[in-house]
Amino acid sequence: MARSIDLAVIPGDGIGPEVVAEGLKVLTAALPGDVKLETTRYDLGATRWHATGETLPDADLERLARHDAILLGAIGDPSVPSGVLERGLLLKLRFAFDHYVNLRPSRLFPNTPTPLAGRPGIDFVVVREGTEGPYVGNGGSMRTGTPAEVATEVSLNTAYGVERVVRDAFARAAARPAKKLTLVHKNNVLVHAGHLWKRTVDRVAEEYPQVATDYLHVDAATIFLVTQPERFDVIVTDNLFGDIITDLAAAITGGIGLAASGNINPAGTYPSMFEPVHGSAPDIAGTGKADPTATVLSVALLLRHLGHEAEAARIEEAVTADLSGRDAAAPRSTSAIGDALAARVAG
Amino acid sequence: MARSIDLAVIPGDGIGPEVVAEGLKVLTAALPGDVKLETTRYDLGATRWHATGETLPDADLERLARHDAILLGAIGDPSVPSGVLERGLLLKLRFAFDHYVNLRPSRLFPNTPTPLAGRPGIDFVVVREGTEGPYVGNGGSMRTGTPAEVATEVSLNTAYGVERVVRDAFARAAARPAKKLTLVHKNNVLVHAGHLWKRTVDRVAEEYPQVATDYLHVDAATIFLVTQPERFDVIVTDNLFGDIITDLAAAITGGIGLAASGNINPAGTYPSMFEPVHGSAPDIAGTGKADPTATVLSVALLLRHLGHEAEAARIEEAVTADLSGRDAAAPRSTSAIGDALAARVAG
Ligand SMILES: CC(C)[C@H](C(=O)O)[C@@H](O)C(=O)O
Ligand SMILES: CC(C)[C@H](C(=O)O)[C@@H](O)C(=O)O
Repeated sequence: MARSIDLAVIPGDGIGPEVVAEGLKVLTAALPGDVKLETTRYDLGATRWHATGETLPDADLERLARHDAILLGAIGDPSVPSGVLERGLLLKLRFAFDHYVNLRPSRLFPNTPTPLAGRPGIDFVVVREGTEGPYVGNGGSMRTGTPAEVATEVSLNTAYGVERVVRDAFARAAARPAKKLTLVHKNNVLVHAGHLWKRTVDRVAEEYPQVATDYLHVDAATIFLVTQPERFDVIVTDNLFGDIITDLAAAITGGIGLAASGNINPAGTYPSMFEPVHGSAPDIAGTGKADPTATVLSVALLLRHLGHEAEAARIEEAVTADLSGRDAAAPRSTSAIGDALAARVAG
Repeated sequence: MARSIDLAVIPGDGIGPEVVAEGLKVLTAALPGDVKLETTRYDLGATRWHATGETLPDADLERLARHDAILLGAIGDPSVPSGVLERGLLLKLRFAFDHYVNLRPSRLFPNTPTPLAGRPGIDFVVVREGTEGPYVGNGGSMRTGTPAEVATEVSLNTAYGVERVVRDAFARAAARPAKKLTLVHKNNVLVHAGHLWKRTVDRVAEEYPQVATDYLHVDAATIFLVTQPERFDVIVTDNLFGDIITDLAAAITGGIGLAASGNINPAGTYPSMFEPVHGSAPDIAGTGKADPTATVLSVALLLRHLGHEAEAARIEEAVTADLSGRDAAAPRSTSAIGDALAARVAG
C-alpha cells in the first residue's frame, strides 16, 4: 500500500475535465490522512493538438512514465479528424505503457435503470486485451481516394500477448465466487487468431481446475448479454471484441455514465491508467449534465491497483448508496454528484 | 417475375433440415399455381465432411451456380473443428457467388417477446457487406503452438467492394419511409478501412439528398441498439461488424428464431442464397423445438428477390398474424408452426 501517490492527470476534452475534477474530489476524500497525494496535470487532447499539432510528444510520454498512475477523463473532439487523438494519444498511451489488461467491471447497481426488462442480476468483469489484435495500427491504404483504393487492417496476435492476459483473467476468475471464465472470440471465421486464443485458454485452464470455462462467438455473446447477462462472470477477449461488448455491457448496466475502466500494466513496469469508458460527449460539455460516477468508480479501481483496497471498497459502497437514492426525475449536476459521493466517502 | 424456380436446397446440419422442410412447405403454399418449383437437394455439411472429407467440392459449386437461388438451413456441428465448415462451405458460397449484400431485416413483430423493457418500435434493415473485410480468410500463424506463436488476420477492403454495397444500402434507404442510413464502423481505430467506408458514404450521399446519413462507431451502435433501436432505419456496415450487430438485432426482436437473411448477388451473376441467421443448434436437433419462422421469412426474402413481391408480402403477413396469436405458454412444434404458416399463406 503506497504511502504517497504521484498521480498524472489528463483531463482531456469535452466533459473530461468536469468528471476528472469530481474524481479527484472523491479521491482526496477517500485517502487516509497520512497518504500524500500529488497531482500533475497534462494538457493533452484536442486543444493541444489545435495549438501545436502535437498529440503525445516523447517528452510528455517520458514524464508520464514516472508517475504512479494516470487518471484520464476523455479524449476526442469533432474538430479533430477521427483517429488522430485516438491513435496518437489514447492508444499510444495504452501501447507505450503496455496496458495489456483493460479491466472493465459491469455491475447492475440497485435502483439503476437498465433497458432490459425484468432486471437480471448483472455482475461480471471483462478482461479486454489492450496491446494487440486489430488495434495495433498495422494497416494502410493504396490508391487512396481513387476507385482502385485498397485498405487493410491487420490484427496481430502473439502467444506472449494472449497468454499473459488469459492468465490474468483466470486469476481473477479464481478469486471470484462464481469462478467462471468465458472466452469471447470468433474462432470459426478468424481461425488463426481465434484458435490461438482458444488453445491458450484450454491450456491455462488445466492449471485452474476450480474455474469453469466456456467459449462464445462474439455475435452469440451479444445475444446472451441482453437475454441472459447473469451467465457471465469473467469474460476474456481480444481488443476489438472487448471494445464492442463493454459498451453493450455498460448500456445494460445503467449506461456509460457508470462504466469504469482500468488500463493495467500488472507488472508495474509503467503506470496504469484509469478512465471512464465514456467519451468526451462534446454535446453536453459545460452543461453540468455529465455523470462523474464512471470516473469515480475508475478512481476506485486506481486505489485498488495501488493497494488501497479499503478505500476502493469505500468508494464503491458510496456509489451504491448514492445510486440507491437517486431520483431520475430530479437529476443533479456533475459537481453535486461529486460532492455527494465525496461526503459519503469522507463520512 | 420468374415463372419457374429452380431452387438448390442445402439443409445442412442440426436443425437445418427441420426448418428447411417447413420453409419449403410454406414456399410451395405461397407460389401461384402456374409457377413451377423444382428443388435439388445438396448434401453438404458435417455428415458429408465426416464421410468424405469434403466441404464444398468444385463439382457441387458448379452445379449450385446454375440454380436460380439457394435455400440453406444451417451449417456446423461440434464434431467438426471450428472454422472448417464455416470457411470451407458457408463463407465459400458467399464469396464464390459474390454475395456482397448480406441483407438482414430486423423488425419487432406484435406480441413477440423482447428482452428490452418498454417495447420500442423496431423496424430496420442491416446491409452487411458479404465479400470483404476481416472475413477474407487472409491471415495465418507461424510457430503455431509454441510460446513464440504469431497469428494474423487481415481485413481487406476495396473501394470497389465498399462502394457497391453502400450504393445498395442508399437505394434501400431511399425506398423506405424513414429514408435514413447509418454507417457503422470503427473509423477512429481502424482508420484505413474506416475512412474508406466513411468517404464512400459521404460521396454517395451527395446523390441521395433525400436520405439522411449518420455515422456510429460499432461500440456506440450496440448501445443504441438496446437503448434506442427506433433510431435505426438502414444500417450499412462491414462484414464482421454486421455479423455482430445482426445477432444483437435478432436478440432484441424476439431472438434468432425469427431472424431472416439473404446473401444477395444483386447483379444476378450467381444465385443468391437465403438462410436463417441462427446456427444448427445441435442441442435441440430432432426435438421439434426449432422455430422455422426465420427460415420462412428467409423464403419471403427469396421470393422478393425473384420478383414475387406479392407472395413475399403474403408470407410476411402470415408470420405477423401467426406471431400475434402465439402463446408462449403453449409452444408448438417445428412442423406445427410450418403447417400453420402454410395454411395462412394458402388460405
Ligand atoms: C476512443 C477509442 C479509441 C476507445 C477504444 O476503442 O478502445 C474507446 O472506445 C474505449 O473503449 O476506450
Ligand atoms: C457461421 C458464421 C460463419 C456466420 C458468420 O459469421 O457470418 C454466422 O454467424 C452468420 O452470421 O451468418
